[in-house]
Amino acid sequence: MTQITLPASRAEAKALDAIDPLRHAKAKFDLADGLIYLNGNSLGPAPKTALDAVEAAAKEEWAKGLIRSWNEAGWIDLPARVGAKIAPLIGVSEDEVLICDSVSVNLFKLAAACMPLAGGEPILYVEEDEFPTDLYIAQGLSALGGFQTQRLPQGGGIEAIAKGGVLIKSAVNYRSARVIDIAAHEAAAAKSGGLIIWDLSHATGAIDLRLAERGARLATGCTYKYLNGGPGAPAFIYAEKALASRLNSPLSGWFGHKAQFAFDPDFAPLPGVARFAVGTPQILSMSALSGALDVYTNIAIADIQSKMRSLVNLCLARAETMGLENLCAETETERGGHVCLVHENGYPIIQAMIARNIIADFRAPGAMRFGFSPLFVSHEDVWDAMEALNEIIETGSWDHPQFKTRSKVT
Amino acid sequence: MTQITLPASRAEAKALDAIDPLRHAKAKFDLADGLIYLNGNSLGPAPKTALDAVEAAAKEEWAKGLIRSWNEAGWIDLPARVGAKIAPLIGVSEDEVLICDSVSVNLFKLAAACMPLAGGEPILYVEEDEFPTDLYIAQGLSALGGFQTQRLPQGGGIEAIAKGGVLIKSAVNYRSARVIDIAAHEAAAAKSGGLIIWDLSHATGAIDLRLAERGARLATGCTYKYLNGGPGAPAFIYAEKALASRLNSPLSGWFGHKAQFAFDPDFAPLPGVARFAVGTPQILSMSALSGALDVYTNIAIADIQSKMRSLVNLCLARAETMGLENLCAETETERGGHVCLVHENGYPIIQAMIARNIIADFRAPGAMRFGFSPLFVSHEDVWDAMEALNEIIETGSWDHPQFKTRSKVT
Repeated sequence: MTQITLPASRAEAKALDAIDPLRHAKAKFDLADGLIYLNGNSLGPAPKTALDAVEAAAKEEWAKGLIRSWNEAGWIDLPARVGAKIAPLIGVSEDEVLICDSVSVNLFKLAAACMPLAGGEPILYVEEDEFPTDLYIAQGLSALGGFQTQRLPQGGGIEAIAKGGVLIKSAVNYRSARVIDIAAHEAAAAKSGGLIIWDLSHATGAIDLRLAERGARLATGCTYKYLNGGPGAPAFIYAEKALASRLNSPLSGWFGHKAQFAFDPDFAPLPGVARFAVGTPQILSMSALSGALDVYTNIAIADIQSKMRSLVNLCLARAETMGLENLCAETETERGGHVCLVHENGYPIIQAMIARNIIADFRAPGAMRFGFSPLFVSHEDVWDAMEALNEIIETGSWDHPQFKTRSKVT
Repeated sequence: MTQITLPASRAEAKALDAIDPLRHAKAKFDLADGLIYLNGNSLGPAPKTALDAVEAAAKEEWAKGLIRSWNEAGWIDLPARVGAKIAPLIGVSEDEVLICDSVSVNLFKLAAACMPLAGGEPILYVEEDEFPTDLYIAQGLSALGGFQTQRLPQGGGIEAIAKGGVLIKSAVNYRSARVIDIAAHEAAAAKSGGLIIWDLSHATGAIDLRLAERGARLATGCTYKYLNGGPGAPAFIYAEKALASRLNSPLSGWFGHKAQFAFDPDFAPLPGVARFAVGTPQILSMSALSGALDVYTNIAIADIQSKMRSLVNLCLARAETMGLENLCAETETERGGHVCLVHENGYPIIQAMIARNIIADFRAPGAMRFGFSPLFVSHEDVWDAMEALNEIIETGSWDHPQFKTRSKVT
């Protein structure tokens, strides 16, 4: 791992960029000149290969190939083939990842399938500071399945899972970006037979997860953030091979059947993670994702993590000089790819930055959120963004009606 | 309704096409010259407006608009806006339809939400000849929910629902294309408080469903068949307004929350059908569907049904002269948009037709399936296809190794 020092000027930031091993990656994206995009943690920008792939899927495979493309363009295998592209980014085997549905739907499938298998009391645990959909899905599932859901205080999962049950846990928290110790959690679960479902939405593509090495057995995550798969791109499921074939998804649809086109009246699941497929996959969206993942050819996730930490360090150092509180972990290795800076006027401040062509976002209450996606963000970008932030706060230029109108999606 | 007579020659078929009110619709599709596409019941071809829409969503809204497009391109409202375009095609109000997930996932949500509300015994009924995913989803749901699923003989649903419970029922059968009497089923359900979930996958865009008029309260259907929404295009849910707000989906995800961006820890559903949204919608696939539905501007579903029946009549008359058995209903009004003709060598015969640029498909065992999508199939096409079928059978030209290799997807 390269030791990266903290730049103290714009020139030093540029000097770091000149030796950045990922400096050529930005050219793979269709990004407007002059734009500083610090929202890749929310919606990644468009890789050129993603735009090409969705165009080919629409105009060639669909319009020309028509129904034949299920065979000839390999649509039928697309969920497994695209899953295999994600596998090295999360540190698991290629045949342990499937693309399907959304994170919410996948959490439901995994949690329901885990409940009968977990050691200890059959309780579904979620910590109270999890991303809301994780809490909601646990509520909905337990109301239907008739088992207990217990909401834990922040960080309470490791103690709970040491006694068994099922825990839904984000590997990177959606607000604080705190990176969770996967190995420690899995060690606790291993003793009790508890099962952990990792939500990797804010982790995948930003940190070096090494799931298999750390004992993680089950996960889902979204692909439209750091993986740049396109708006609402389908999610992925990872299930450790030996465990996967013991899991029964309640969403047993025909794409998860071991002989789909035999039209058997009874469900019999495919082996492994493939059983988590349900209905017909949305091929156009999945094709964009497939193209997007080609950006990672010859790029190591360890290099991405290393540069991400350097960008975050620079942001935090600049924020400190400005006196802005942050929600990040103290330790570098516990920090993910985004930074929340606290300001009571965060919303209009972010709008004023957007007006200067620097895109970030805001999460109520009071968190200005900046994402540092190492494939297309440079140290120079971070420097410039923080200078602009400083100026907007110092001059009070955010205090203008045009920046205060709230949009439907914040 | 125009009375259409049965053409007895190719010239008479062409004469019917000359006065067809839908004769200009084919120009709205990107279809190769000389191709006869009789698989619109499985995967509709690409409307030009769909290709334009997905290109705009990818290259403009995603690549240029980036995260701003959730507001500025209206992505956040897309599931409701596209649902509103489907409403007139199925005969319900615009605010009663939502685009989300797949038919399989939606059947699960609807059935789970119905079970606590249905009158009579809490039993989930499915007839044994339903599309397999409908059977599988009922199995998976009842195993999780702890209530009874009962498989009924073909046609047994109306008797069962008259005593209460929940029935999953296709409005058009996937093999026989038999059209079910929705009004009679709903009248039976109304007496007992039973609830029927209509699977409209093989019905929508082929027949004039008039759901509200016939008392249908809940439905889901796919959009990649007669609606031409693209490969694996997302499904829709219809829920009658008064009933919808009493239904609790177990898949309670953040897109179904009444204050999504408040990040409340507890789930509280949106009013009406919107509560059935779960995770982030796949915007590229949904945009293609949105464009595809613009084909229906100024086209009445009654005209589509009328022409569909005329095409089916012509196919059946020609098949009769060839001595081919069909799986269709006797009565014209009970027939949907596709025809299954029975032949023990159906698979290689269909491959030989495809080699002649006439695309149809095969469903084991022995069913050659021809779909008659009135927007781009003419009487002349049906005439030519049946002539080709006759010649292939008469000459035995299907009896060749190249036509006998089975593909993964049949």
